[in-house]
Amino acid sequence: MGAGPAGLLLGRLLHLAGIDSVIVEHRSRDYVQKRVRAGLLEQGTVELLREAGVAHRLDQLAAVHTGFELRFAEESVRIPFADLSGRSVWMYGQAEVVKDLIAAREGVAELHFDARDVVVDEAGGERPVLRYSLDGERVELRCDIVVGCDGYHGVTRSRMPGLRTYEHAYPFAWLGILVEAPPIAKELIYACHERGFSLYSMRSPTVSRLYLQVDPTDTLDQWPDDRVWAELHTRLGTDLGYGLNEGPILERGITSMRSFVAEPMSRGNVFLAGDAAHIVPPTAAKGLNLAVSDVRVLAEALADWFTTGDRKALDGYSERCLRRVWRAEEFSDWMTGLLHRFPDERNMQFRFREARLRYLAGSEAAMSSFSENYVGSAVA
Amino acid sequence: MGAGPAGLLLGRLLHLAGIDSVIVEHRSRDYVQKRVRAGLLEQGTVELLREAGVAHRLDQLAAVHTGFELRFAEESVRIPFADLSGRSVWMYGQAEVVKDLIAAREGVAELHFDARDVVVDEAGGERPVLRYSLDGERVELRCDIVVGCDGYHGVTRSRMPGLRTYEHAYPFAWLGILVEAPPIAKELIYACHERGFSLYSMRSPTVSRLYLQVDPTDTLDQWPDDRVWAELHTRLGTDLGYGLNEGPILERGITSMRSFVAEPMSRGNVFLAGDAAHIVPPTAAKGLNLAVSDVRVLAEALADWFTTGDRKALDGYSERCLRRVWRAEEFSDWMTGLLHRFPDERNMQFRFREARLRYLAGSEAAMSSFSENYVGSAVA
Repeated sequence: MGAGPAGLLLGRLLHLAGIDSVIVEHRSRDYVQKRVRAGLLEQGTVELLREAGVAHRLDQLAAVHTGFELRFAEESVRIPFADLSGRSVWMYGQAEVVKDLIAAREGVAELHFDARDVVVDEAGGERPVLRYSLDGERVELRCDIVVGCDGYHGVTRSRMPGLRTYEHAYPFAWLGILVEAPPIAKELIYACHERGFSLYSMRSPTVSRLYLQVDPTDTLDQWPDDRVWAELHTRLGTDLGYGLNEGPILERGITSMRSFVAEPMSRGNVFLAGDAAHIVPPTAAKGLNLAVSDVRVLAEALADWFTTGDRKALDGYSERCLRRVWRAEEFSDWMTGLLHRFPDERNMQFRFREARLRYLAGSEAAMSSFSENYVGSAVA
Repeated sequence: MGAGPAGLLLGRLLHLAGIDSVIVEHRSRDYVQKRVRAGLLEQGTVELLREAGVAHRLDQLAAVHTGFELRFAEESVRIPFADLSGRSVWMYGQAEVVKDLIAAREGVAELHFDARDVVVDEAGGERPVLRYSLDGERVELRCDIVVGCDGYHGVTRSRMPGLRTYEHAYPFAWLGILVEAPPIAKELIYACHERGFSLYSMRSPTVSRLYLQVDPTDTLDQWPDDRVWAELHTRLGTDLGYGLNEGPILERGITSMRSFVAEPMSRGNVFLAGDAAHIVPPTAAKGLNLAVSDVRVLAEALADWFTTGDRKALDGYSERCLRRVWRAEEFSDWMTGLLHRFPDERNMQFRFREARLRYLAGSEAAMSSFSENYVGSAVA
């Protein structure tokens, strides 16, 4: 269920293992290929895409990052996470990952966009049923396994009985813009300012991606171009000696900030992977990487089961994934708390944040701990 | 002002530098020598007490600790902070430090207990005035320097104009008991339990010191011996294989949990040191150690000024201390948040805490960062 990175990569890995699958997506192909989302891939994610044979373009186009810049209180420090953790990250947009995976599947295995009235039935049973309409025709599939890779708003989770959910909404959102302008820096810039957080990132040598912390009730109407640029100049502190290349804004959107976990990640032969099971605030760029990590575990477990009939790995899927999920959830929450201005922040909390930033910037032990979480290698 | 550890140690260091001082304390000698407070000395604290020639008993009696035990969710791990940070801590009660310092001062320099109606006047001026009554007789001292070592409730701070204060009260308190019973363990045990935090510590081979997180409105009446012991058995998880030596309770008290900072720590020739300027929750045992660190900086700065007339170190006192103070405040707040059950805790926050504990217990980088803060060597 779902042709995002999780569903498509799982389909790819199953195909390589000789297991048939059908991918059903209610959005159009154009929509999923253009959807602007995350752009930071952990090393483990890149390695799995390579194993799956879909990293050819990635290896040509993606920039490898070994550190980022952190700005706060007139200071600027580099966090050399690769030196400290032994791992790098790759800058490559989710839309590109999706394009590569669709290209690999087409003409090879079933992939249906624009599906209507998708439902999962008998989710607790041994042979769950998937029903949907394609071009007005009703389809019913009785499946060995259904995997909900259909995101936070997907239908699969809602059909699974007795899940426990945890949820927290943050009192701010991110306004993201995609800009046709060469990046001003080679690495990301995370900037803490008393007016709020901002993040400078890049997607290619000609396209920059910038974010601003905004009020969660703000609409795009309230952020005309000149206000966006003025705020970015102020918060990124362009007086620090960096310019800020303005350019045409190709895309803009406001993303709410949420933490969410559903437990367990399976019921009978129905499984959840990626955003369908867990949401992180985008601060630490964990969303896509967690989805890929789920898929790695699930593809191996399914291969085990289909090959040998042994359900052990399949039955352990949820517990194994959730350890990593909770680590990433906690780190994403911590990093969100570190970098953002909170509307109800007491003065003392503001000073605590400042002390935490200063400590992170000055202590090798603190940077090492931060780095192993940032690159996704922390023991969970 | 004040004959706690800060005032007495400062007086000792000034004496060794050939600078005259008068110590005025409104409590009785008996009270300050018996006041049960902190019992964990950082290495830097011990080193300064040795330099001051008052560590003879400490070096005979104090136990050196190189790690502690952390219990949560049925797990038990040792945090080997000395291996990770290169520094140990000493278990030696504040009352003993005070006794040693009083013994070193008596017959050597002025030390007045039971002072009445103590006030500081002209606190912003060049020659502040200290007024108090001793045995019904009014005394007035026009001083070069007044140092408020008179604690959170002391009068000095209230006479200093234009200080900015930061304050946060935690929604729980600590019930502490001093027990006549040999300790069950050689190292401290920090235990997180769904009913709340508890801490097992020791003061000598025959005296144990135990703490329980309680409601901030609780009174000692609500905690008869049998309730205290039952709760300790439950929270320390004595089913883990450790016993719990019960014994006569020699002393008991309830301590509220507070973070507090006053900035700057000086005005003209009036200075603050220790609790008079900053309070931490007791979780990370930073209070006494911060006071000693203030005193080290101030004694050096005063010696500079009295010897050479150079005010530079004196003028930099507040800023230099506050860097360390905010680091300790932030760490104490973080450690308090890690270990305690919060009355309004959402389920997700509880799971975040669990993930944080599990990470601390499993990651060498996380333990290293924790350790350098715990032993007081983190760069501030």
